[in-house]
Amino acid sequence: MKLDKVPEVVIQRLPRYYRYLGELLEEKTNRISSMELSRRMGLTSSQIRQDFCSFGEFGLQGYGYNVKYLREEIGKILDLDRMKRMIVVGAGNLGQALANYQFDKVGFELIGIFDINPRLNGFAIRNIKVMMMDALESFVQENQVDIAVLTIPEEAALDVGMYLEKTGIQAIWNFTPVDLNTMLHICVKNVHLDENLMTLAYEYKNLLKKQA
Amino acid sequence: MKLDKVPEVVIQRLPRYYRYLGELLEEKTNRISSMELSRRMGLTSSQIRQDFCSFGEFGLQGYGYNVKYLREEIGKILDLDRMKRMIVVGAGNLGQALANYQFDKVGFELIGIFDINPRLNGFAIRNIKVMMMDALESFVQENQVDIAVLTIPEEAALDVGMYLEKTGIQAIWNFTPVDLNTMLHICVKNVHLDENLMTLAYEYKNLLKKQA
Repeated sequence: MKLDKVPEVVIQRLPRYYRYLGELLEEKTNRISSMELSRRMGLTSSQIRQDFCSFGEFGLQGYGYNVKYLREEIGKILDLDRMKRMIVVGAGNLGQALANYQFDKVGFELIGIFDINPRLNGFAIRNIKVMMMDALESFVQENQVDIAVLTIPEEAALDVGMYLEKTGIQAIWNFTPVDLNTMLHICVKNVHLDENLMTLAYEYKNLLKKQA
Repeated sequence: MKLDKVPEVVIQRLPRYYRYLGELLEEKTNRISSMELSRRMGLTSSQIRQDFCSFGEFGLQGYGYNVKYLREEIGKILDLDRMKRMIVVGAGNLGQALANYQFDKVGFELIGIFDINPRLNGFAIRNIKVMMMDALESFVQENQVDIAVLTIPEEAALDVGMYLEKTGIQAIWNFTPVDLNTMLHICVKNVHLDENLMTLAYEYKNLLKKQA
């Protein structure tokens, strides 16, 4: 395994492979060629071969890939086997929506939800009650929280981010528009929804151009 | 401009450049070197030069980039100048959260919100009232909708996606886990939040490994 050299763009594609291979397993497909996989996923087969090559060897030319083995190996690379403990910080619409996702399936267990709004105190989402922020620090110490999902207003992002870092949380899934990764020393993954929408604008423009 | 050849990974980075260049303009910075931009953005300066190279020439060696011009050109490539008209389909937590985002700033105007739940009928988000789904078709015909944001349960995704395509909508920003892009003939951008979280798991694992 040459794990240290896996390029970021390949890592970004791994979850998609993982999902497709899971669907194949459910259909009882045990082997698949890069060509067939490429047809399903809308990638080129040479792209797929290159991707898999960059983190090891999972197939033999002409024999295709062992679906189960390949999926397990990708799961290991992404560390999906080990359950991570997650809290949601900010129980507004977005926080509630994310708390309702079943991220358990991909290795993330929701164990707490926090907010500053007393009206939300005790409100339950999937049997997990919203707690107030002043209970967060002791909760983190008692429960070994891995990841905080940050769904709070932009103005509070840096303060709360720094506070979370201080409690010992090591990773933040950041939905605020503030680039906390450049400000904190822990692992931060920014989700910039507006940037995603902007790339849709590009594809949409190209579609209209083709039709013109 | 060699627009047809811009690789997808570069397109994905363009919104981020656009955002950073906007911040520079606000700070009255008119010129910036690829090295200074790289320091701010956490990319290498050769990466930045390569990216800009792939869609044209915006800077002269040693003189840096003209911030305003570069930002405008990126905005043109992403088609951010032209206001697109957007509706949200599915006014649950996620739909409401997205309806509250100010995507106007990047060229997307929210003009309608739809749901099937009669209890939401008339409920207003940013002065836009939730309408019932049976009003959608005539609304689209009267209002030239460009993009539908799809925030409905997985089970309904394909049916509603096909329905939206039939109304003449040409682009879907798809938050359901169903890969509508392989099923519809319009422009579909899937947002797989679980995949994003899985890449965080990878980065988190590497952080823990470094600490060990």
